Amino acid sequence: MNPGGADQSSRRSPTAEQLRVWRSFAETSERLKNIVAVQLQDDSALSTGDYAVLVALFEQPDRRMRSSQLAEHISWQRSRLSHHLGRMEKRGLVTRETAVDDSRGAVIALTPTGAAMFRKASPAHLHTIHDTFVAALDARQLAAIDDAMRALDTHLNGSPEDR
Amino acid sequence: MNPGGADQSSRRSPTAEQLRVWRSFAETSERLKNIVAVQLQDDSALSTGDYAVLVALFEQPDRRMRSSQLAEHISWQRSRLSHHLGRMEKRGLVTRETAVDDSRGAVIALTPTGAAMFRKASPAHLHTIHDTFVAALDARQLAAIDDAMRALDTHLNGSPEDR
Repeated sequence: MNPGGADQSSRRSPTAEQLRVWRSFAETSERLKNIVAVQLQDDSALSTGDYAVLVALFEQPDRRMRSSQLAEHISWQRSRLSHHLGRMEKRGLVTRETAVDDSRGAVIALTPTGAAMFRKASPAHLHTIHDTFVAALDARQLAAIDDAMRALDTHLNGSPEDR
Repeated sequence: MNPGGADQSSRRSPTAEQLRVWRSFAETSERLKNIVAVQLQDDSALSTGDYAVLVALFEQPDRRMRSSQLAEHISWQRSRLSHHLGRMEKRGLVTRETAVDDSRGAVIALTPTGAAMFRKASPAHLHTIHDTFVAALDARQLAAIDDAMRALDTHLNGSPEDR
């Protein structure tokens, strides 16, 4: 971003049609994520953030990760993750073993309670993702979304707009 | 949703590949919306919700809408919109003229301050949408996103999952 830069007037704006697609993308993705989040909260008392942490830990052979590694895995800033893990620790879903002399951060371990919550929550959560997202799209549309998300990620990873 | 229903065991789950595309869609859309929201807040002290209300009113010939019509236009629940409009009214961006005997809700009018804020905020906001979203995609990818979002919307509009 260069809002005060001398080249501001040369920066491009979307056409009306491109803006319409952006709005449709922003609104539809929000709508879907809200449905998935409400189901997960109502049925399992978990936020989608909780679930992302649980699934990441569950998929590790020893069910533990460095907090730095976990932050990268779920694409969260470390400060946001740290606050979130504090709340999850209070609920008994994870433990944090702080390694004072290690810049890679604490070791986060899934507790038996956390693993049980994850196992219990998963079937209904996965059904919701299937019923709201997968079932709406044919294979070509799903592949097209995958392709477009890769292009967006690649673009964002190479640009200063990625904050 | 029928999480307690007798047919629960027959409901389908995504494949690993479908789940990967869902996660990519959820994460990339979130990432993009965060970038756009941070720019708008930093440069113009507006939330994306504020902006959605301002643009909807600005596009009306008389710069006013019924709150029920506005809620539908921006796909918000009326209670959420009502709280949001209260905050925007305090900031002088809109006025609400309550029509007691009218179930269509108050008439919401854009103030000169709101119109000025909208005009000032728009160029940088549109540049950000161009630079982060439009510039990352070719015409085929943009059309594919449009097509997939339409399919998702149609599916959600016809299904009980749309809460």
